Amino acid sequence: MTDTAATRRSRITPEREAELYEAVLDLLRDVGYDALTMDAVAARTRCSKATLYRQWGSKPELIAKALRHDKPVSLADIDTGSLRGDLNEMVARSDDCQMEKDAALMRGLFHAVHDNPELRQALRNLLIEPELTGLNDLLRRAVERGEVAADNPALEYVVHMMTGAFVARDLIEDRPVDRAFLASYVDAVVLPVLGV
Amino acid sequence: MTDTAATRRSRITPEREAELYEAVLDLLRDVGYDALTMDAVAARTRCSKATLYRQWGSKPELIAKALRHDKPVSLADIDTGSLRGDLNEMVARSDDCQMEKDAALMRGLFHAVHDNPELRQALRNLLIEPELTGLNDLLRRAVERGEVAADNPALEYVVHMMTGAFVARDLIEDRPVDRAFLASYVDAVVLPVLGV
Repeated sequence: MTDTAATRRSRITPEREAELYEAVLDLLRDVGYDALTMDAVAARTRCSKATLYRQWGSKPELIAKALRHDKPVSLADIDTGSLRGDLNEMVARSDDCQMEKDAALMRGLFHAVHDNPELRQALRNLLIEPELTGLNDLLRRAVERGEVAADNPALEYVVHMMTGAFVARDLIEDRPVDRAFLASYVDAVVLPVLGV
Repeated sequence: MTDTAATRRSRITPEREAELYEAVLDLLRDVGYDALTMDAVAARTRCSKATLYRQWGSKPELIAKALRHDKPVSLADIDTGSLRGDLNEMVARSDDCQMEKDAALMRGLFHAVHDNPELRQALRNLLIEPELTGLNDLLRRAVERGEVAADNPALEYVVHMMTGAFVARDLIEDRPVDRAFLASYVDAVVLPVLGV
């Protein structure tokens, strides 16, 4: 989804913005966070540094927005009427190739995040908090419908379970995360522990 | 635990070996995997490069063994007679400070692992496979005692659940993994999904 506030205050079209974000992520995959400079972004996108800074403020913010733009599934859009349906929809909207590309990006950022408080804050504000809010809304609706007991202690750990699926598949099993695996994990772990 | 095969073929005492592994991990925290050279290890430990190579073969193997030596809890040693007891024992043996140090090391290695097939293989052989074997033995005993149904589909995802506890606590919650958190996670997620 396009950031409407950013679009409003600029002369950059949504198409140009999308193109620019793709270029930023390509650079990030190629050279990593530390070596990605605003000069390199300007050169690759033929966009002046002045425009980049006016539009995005800083490198961490530009990267966080590019990652948010790239993200294939937004939990906030999903509301099928049941928890099982919501989680199945989340899996169904995932794209196997996209997930492999995301895993590569995330590995590159994992270390940078800890050395760069500004990047951490930008990712937190633009990527993590909105997704956590989306997940919590989805779970709150399940509690309100009576699908999950309000005092189920696993409710606060759903994000940990889902993160583990991605990281352990990649790092420990050395296999790509794909839809079939995610669907099986949701059925075997997430739904049963929530009592669904 | 000391690697008895390595000790047997060397003139290095277990104390000297432990000291050397500590120095390697300090270096790894300071400079990261790529910048850690055998020259730097030799200089910091006052051990000749010839001895390092004779004893450990290669940099990835040396680092994997240092990590294995440092690891505070070995699942293979734990057998209390019940799954709840085994997992509680695992948590009880964890050390909060050690876990923070480990998290910092793991962040540094996360990216290196994907760029260095030799490091990945060494970590797999020396660290990941033995732990997976330990975990699978622990779960197999729980099944044999009738605590967990043999066909519980969550059995193959325990490693994913546990990995998620560590990574999401650190990366998404931005809080340190400690024993209180791990104990609560085991009670809320791991034991219930296994039907214990």
